[in-house]
Amino acid sequence: MSQRGGIRIIGLGPGDPGLMTPRASEALEGAEVVIGYRGYVERVKPQLGDQRVIARELTEEVDRAREAYRYAMDGYRVAVISSGDPGIYAMAGLVFEVLKEAGWREREGPAVEVVPGVSALQACAARVGAPLMHDFCAVSLSDLLTPRDVIRRRLQAAAAGDFVTALYNPRSKRRVEPIREAKDIFLRYRSGETPVALVRNAYREGEEIRLTVLAQMLSHPVDMLTTVLIGNSHTVFYEGKMLTPRGYRARYPLSVSEKKEGRA
Amino acid sequence: MSQRGGIRIIGLGPGDPGLMTPRASEALEGAEVVIGYRGYVERVKPQLGDQRVIARELTEEVDRAREAYRYAMDGYRVAVISSGDPGIYAMAGLVFEVLKEAGWREREGPAVEVVPGVSALQACAARVGAPLMHDFCAVSLSDLLTPRDVIRRRLQAAAAGDFVTALYNPRSKRRVEPIREAKDIFLRYRSGETPVALVRNAYREGEEIRLTVLAQMLSHPVDMLTTVLIGNSHTVFYEGKMLTPRGYRARYPLSVSEKKEGRA
Repeated sequence: MSQRGGIRIIGLGPGDPGLMTPRASEALEGAEVVIGYRGYVERVKPQLGDQRVIARELTEEVDRAREAYRYAMDGYRVAVISSGDPGIYAMAGLVFEVLKEAGWREREGPAVEVVPGVSALQACAARVGAPLMHDFCAVSLSDLLTPRDVIRRRLQAAAAGDFVTALYNPRSKRRVEPIREAKDIFLRYRSGETPVALVRNAYREGEEIRLTVLAQMLSHPVDMLTTVLIGNSHTVFYEGKMLTPRGYRARYPLSVSEKKEGRA
Repeated sequence: MSQRGGIRIIGLGPGDPGLMTPRASEALEGAEVVIGYRGYVERVKPQLGDQRVIARELTEEVDRAREAYRYAMDGYRVAVISSGDPGIYAMAGLVFEVLKEAGWREREGPAVEVVPGVSALQACAARVGAPLMHDFCAVSLSDLLTPRDVIRRRLQAAAAGDFVTALYNPRSKRRVEPIREAKDIFLRYRSGETPVALVRNAYREGEEIRLTVLAQMLSHPVDMLTTVLIGNSHTVFYEGKMLTPRGYRARYPLSVSEKKEGRA
């Protein structure tokens, strides 16, 4: 990236400063302009110096991306911050969409870099054990930008393919039906006893973790801050952990007393 | 975690020390025994002090998990290291499988913690732009632990569901057929012009990035160190970036000259 005039799109990770990468911290601290959702800006305030800070509301993503471009064109080093990973349902794609609309050329600049971060689905998975250990997918239930029939088709495919599935944006105040539909679609392919984790505010103040099963998952509170992890047909609970075995047991003895067998 | 006798399963991230989280570094440096694949142990050598280091070969995952358990039962603080995120095709699940086999009880210990990290699919995505911006999935083509027909069913579902798809372990010396099958399955649902990124050693020495299209993807070298990212039906290339739009363009004006419209 050139000395001046660039955009770094930075993943803050789930919230715990210990899960924000050094590269993200450096990019943030080296920026002249920091742009982000108000809540995320608050989170990084302790790390900021005399940067110009533009804190915006949740619905103003497009404005944030446009402002980033304008400041970068004016020669500033801009940091656009996202929670989790900026490349997963966050700001990276939108910044590139705005750049494309503006006719940005890579060799003319401003330079753009995406700094990845630990995503919500990984944070949730780590807090409940090892649920993502086999093929998995992420589906957002938000219908603001995606037609409902596309979401349904994705859920159908995820369920039929026996993917461990992370549901993002599972329910808003206005939108309560898609999570019910999701549950019904999964019940066509998986047992009602399939393990499900509902994780809210992973690694943040007020963290809530609830382990339940597919048939019961809507008996518990679910909102926009909840990530829903639905196990595949092999996922189990064990000692308060959610675990998707990868298949070692069928091939290798796992007992700790057998020392030398089982190498491939 | 109690003062002594615990297992932390740590994600090192893709390889760049700047992408290893502070929490992972602390867990590593605070360990008394570090267990991992030889290549990953080499990577963290500069961070290690007088820890006992157990470096093992790629095929010895089960041994590593058993040793972690034995050392933890003997009262040591053990770090089991994985590249990327330990919860994604890595050591977290196997450690829990071994604990389960051994009859581990959470309240009796040893304590177990998973420290998430930036995964290969995120690292690859960040290096090529913003390909994962809509619903995505990960499928491993390794048939060591997963029957071929399960892999086929997953690929079929991923393709039919129009998921952006990351293929892990796409090809080994011995196993060349599944990547061809994957390509053929995707070609049934997506154009041969669908953007594909082949990323090898993301954020490591010898990083290689190749942008191609579905029909041509096998004209380029692909091996176990390559992550293959297949776009969905809306993914495009723009100025050397791979971009999956999320749908803002249909709802909001993205032009930087229109300042005030488009708020939700």
